[in-house]
Amino acid sequence: MKSLDELLDRFRVEPGQKCRLKDYNPGWQGDEDRPEDERREYAAKVLEESVAAVSEAQELLYAADTWSVLVIFQALDAAGKDGTIKHVMSGVNPQGVSVASFKQPSAMELDHDFLWRCNAALPERGRIGIFNRSYYEEVLIVKVHPELVAAQRIPNADPDRKKFWKARYASINQFEEHLARNGTKILKFFLHISKDEQRRRFLKRLEDPDRHWKFSEADLHERDFWDDYQKAYGEMLTETSTKYGPWHVIPADHKWVSRAVVAKILAREINGLKVKRPELSPEEIARLGEYRERLLNEDGGN
Amino acid sequence: MKSLDELLDRFRVEPGQKCRLKDYNPGWQGDEDRPEDERREYAAKVLEESVAAVSEAQELLYAADTWSVLVIFQALDAAGKDGTIKHVMSGVNPQGVSVASFKQPSAMELDHDFLWRCNAALPERGRIGIFNRSYYEEVLIVKVHPELVAAQRIPNADPDRKKFWKARYASINQFEEHLARNGTKILKFFLHISKDEQRRRFLKRLEDPDRHWKFSEADLHERDFWDDYQKAYGEMLTETSTKYGPWHVIPADHKWVSRAVVAKILAREINGLKVKRPELSPEEIARLGEYRERLLNEDGGN
Repeated sequence: MKSLDELLDRFRVEPGQKCRLKDYNPGWQGDEDRPEDERREYAAKVLEESVAAVSEAQELLYAADTWSVLVIFQALDAAGKDGTIKHVMSGVNPQGVSVASFKQPSAMELDHDFLWRCNAALPERGRIGIFNRSYYEEVLIVKVHPELVAAQRIPNADPDRKKFWKARYASINQFEEHLARNGTKILKFFLHISKDEQRRRFLKRLEDPDRHWKFSEADLHERDFWDDYQKAYGEMLTETSTKYGPWHVIPADHKWVSRAVVAKILAREINGLKVKRPELSPEEIARLGEYRERLLNEDGGN
Repeated sequence: MKSLDELLDRFRVEPGQKCRLKDYNPGWQGDEDRPEDERREYAAKVLEESVAAVSEAQELLYAADTWSVLVIFQALDAAGKDGTIKHVMSGVNPQGVSVASFKQPSAMELDHDFLWRCNAALPERGRIGIFNRSYYEEVLIVKVHPELVAAQRIPNADPDRKKFWKARYASINQFEEHLARNGTKILKFFLHISKDEQRRRFLKRLEDPDRHWKFSEADLHERDFWDDYQKAYGEMLTETSTKYGPWHVIPADHKWVSRAVVAKILAREINGLKVKRPELSPEEIARLGEYRERLLNEDGGN
């Protein structure tokens, strides 16, 4: 039996290679020669074990206080970012995790460079930081709607020229390379959903009063730009999947698939850091012995 | 059988009343006429049910996007703040929770008023924010070591006068009242540990290499000021337990007790907000119907 672990590499976008989004099947759900409930059961086990592994790894990250981990999620609406964050990260000590969601930038944020607000929300050393959307919106929604560039009032910005977007990719890559050099492990996930599955999920939200609040007309509006988004995602994946910040294209039409795959990759990559509990020097250990004596000889305690 | 729920009120510091810390037993562990394993089992059940209740309540908070919840933990070292946060809040969707730990202030933070750095870390609407320590350190460690006031370079500050501390309590109360007025539910927990139990836990850290990193000489140093801290805590509880920001004194010598009590109070208080899923207007619902039509009539989907 081929383990899921062996399959993980196929979800990674090879740095320096052109990423053709059409080569990735959003409906992938394992080896379909095997019965579905067997595959679902296997995925549930992978998810559970991986969540436990991430939780354990986080305790070590926190104790060691050397690495931080930045996990970026990007996707079209209804691809399952919120649910993935919930199911993969619940159970991890919230003291070691932060989640930042980036929505439409404020006037104050627009008055800064496009990395600024994300920079301010980066995880501290020893923590896992989740970005629910990120500066990648700057080469996605902004690329699909180039008129948004005007609101940023950048001198001589010309979004009609390829050069403008090349420079944005370069800014992002250089920013991530700097973070990686300074102890941030970067993992990026694109939750890849099909147009048909998005329709199904939108309809589900519209038909269930408990989900009404999740629906906004803007989501439907963006759906009209489906092909433009596919193109922008493809280019982003090609241009910004790097050794220090690789992209993973996650099949997202089946939530039981996408959650297990994301959890497994996270667990594998964080464990790959081989973080160790901090070790004390012989002098420090000797000093601990002195403290111990002092406490033992204390007069009666309370 | 008297339920834990009925007991909760005795942990709350009645606003406007003098709090005598000696009246609270840090070693409390339920009705000791009943066998210990029965009590432990009961506490485990309370913890599990309360964690599930907090998790569910958080989903509603997030959907409603009206209230935020601020939970403040204060305690002497080794009283179990970190463990309580971990056990009570793990399982809650990390997207709806933020934890801020306040350590020694930086030079930049000292250049601001003492509420400033905490203000910047307040939870957004719809979220639960945990403060692991807080501005209350300003009337605890700073009160025990008044020489720290000098580093804050406040004009005409005189920590030898009662007036100085009265003004700090007033600043805190007014700050919290303002937050409460604007939709923040404030809950404050003092984890109350005995001097003897602290000694036991310090020794455990010193004797277990896996816990060595948790020990710092500063902790031992502060232990020498035990009585001063008890006094400072008592005064803080008296002066700052208010209707809009009540303090709870949690018996913390037994972790299985403190975690269950904190979880139960949190669940009860958040549910007491009676948050409802946002309701749409008839116009909005009609518009959702239009969106639905539009999706259903879409040409084939993918």
